[in-house]
Amino acid sequence: MVEQYTPPNVWTMDSESGGKWASINRPDSGARHQQALAVGLHPLQLYSMGTPNGQKVTIMLEELLAVGVKEAEYDAHLINIGDADQFSSGFVDINPNSKIPALQDRSTETPISIFESGSILFYLAEKFGHFLPKDFAARTEVMNWLFWLQGSAPYLGGGFGHFYSYAPEKFEYPINRFSMETKRQLDVLDKQLANHPFIAGSEYSIADIAIWPWYGNLVLGSLYDAADFLDVKSYPNLMRWATQLAERQAVKRGQIVNRTWGEEWEQVAERHSASDIDQALAKQPS
Amino acid sequence: MVEQYTPPNVWTMDSESGGKWASINRPDSGARHQQALAVGLHPLQLYSMGTPNGQKVTIMLEELLAVGVKEAEYDAHLINIGDADQFSSGFVDINPNSKIPALQDRSTETPISIFESGSILFYLAEKFGHFLPKDFAARTEVMNWLFWLQGSAPYLGGGFGHFYSYAPEKFEYPINRFSMETKRQLDVLDKQLANHPFIAGSEYSIADIAIWPWYGNLVLGSLYDAADFLDVKSYPNLMRWATQLAERQAVKRGQIVNRTWGEEWEQVAERHSASDIDQALAKQPS
Repeated sequence: MVEQYTPPNVWTMDSESGGKWASINRPDSGARHQQALAVGLHPLQLYSMGTPNGQKVTIMLEELLAVGVKEAEYDAHLINIGDADQFSSGFVDINPNSKIPALQDRSTETPISIFESGSILFYLAEKFGHFLPKDFAARTEVMNWLFWLQGSAPYLGGGFGHFYSYAPEKFEYPINRFSMETKRQLDVLDKQLANHPFIAGSEYSIADIAIWPWYGNLVLGSLYDAADFLDVKSYPNLMRWATQLAERQAVKRGQIVNRTWGEEWEQVAERHSASDIDQALAKQPS
Repeated sequence: MVEQYTPPNVWTMDSESGGKWASINRPDSGARHQQALAVGLHPLQLYSMGTPNGQKVTIMLEELLAVGVKEAEYDAHLINIGDADQFSSGFVDINPNSKIPALQDRSTETPISIFESGSILFYLAEKFGHFLPKDFAARTEVMNWLFWLQGSAPYLGGGFGHFYSYAPEKFEYPINRFSMETKRQLDVLDKQLANHPFIAGSEYSIADIAIWPWYGNLVLGSLYDAADFLDVKSYPNLMRWATQLAERQAVKRGQIVNRTWGEEWEQVAERHSASDIDQALAKQPS
């Protein structure tokens, strides 16, 4: 028997604990250092990293370029969250929540700041008129699933991923709690994809673009190395969809932007033109 | 020293563990029993419970009625999540994710199902043209914060609230992890509200309506009894905003709908007309 922990009356930070992100996470917000953001030549300036939340936006931008929306050209600047780049004064000005991705649209007279990956996907879909149906009912179904992802992924990332991969010890109760919820979510997606080719129905949409970087990567084994642990083969419809989307050119391109890990051809730390991605992909062994 | 837990190769459910919600939570999804939903007379049929996610929608509907949108009249049916009502075939047809709230709009030729509280707020704002600015920049700022809430509240509810209030034991590491994140979020809101009367700027919007039921109730001491533990008095701008919103008639009305706990006057288990709320509030001691 271990003595049970009793929380104090008022919580204070214990700088000893915290696991992998202990040196970055703090109980307060705001800028920690003065530094302006770099600004490139395109109207859209993205400040991000190639995590699942970052991939959502770069896949969306590559999808827009693939259907011929030239105005979706973008500069993708690396915000290295392990180096605390998200706490620069320039980044906090765009996103006071200090989380990647953040986008600035400089095509308008006054630049517009967009943060939260779901908000960015919706903004780009509205602005350019793609990947979000015009029909009210179909559009509502896409928004249902876009919001589903934003409320569900924290259980996968901040819950399951943290306790399975990053926490300083393997804690049994949280691993069980978040494994059960993650499997429930996988089952929700699998049942939905049993009857629909894409998440929100018959058309590829921002719901797919939001969900694939988390749940697609997870079942394909690219996230947390947990495919066996979660028995992902028991979700065949989800596997079908994940594999199919992984073959899209825009997904292949978008998922390697602002990435600083993996094989050499998977790392496009910054993207300022299409050729930055072309050159990386050209190094891929055939 | 305790022996460290080693996760198995493949996760399986241990029916012994799970805390308060152990009998309800499962690693799969879908209907557990056949039962149709009740349908009332109004075009909008809400299936919900008076938790923070439920309150968002009932506050929104009461705000719409308060500004004279007669088409926002609604029936609010109780979905008791402790009794597994969210796993009925009728509820799952509307929301395959089995979470409250879910809304059905029967004013259209084919009824439209809306789930996820953020999606419902957006749907109602778009449909009725209130609490979401028309101006593109102002509207984007509201959407940024609406998505902020949907991605942040799981750390408060599924993280902090679960480990501080509901887990079978007080586990130190998860309580520290989620207390730190919750305090960071409170600080983000406090700094935002230092410079703006409302969350997304000068106008009351669906961003406020989404955020108040979680973070407003938390700092006012109505959620998890954690106001002292989180030292909420250190967030004066957030306290000012939370107190101010609590005084709105629509907030007072909406927050007691589909509620089955608290004082007698706070319990409007089902709402089929304005008088259901009027009668409950009339019992409030003055």
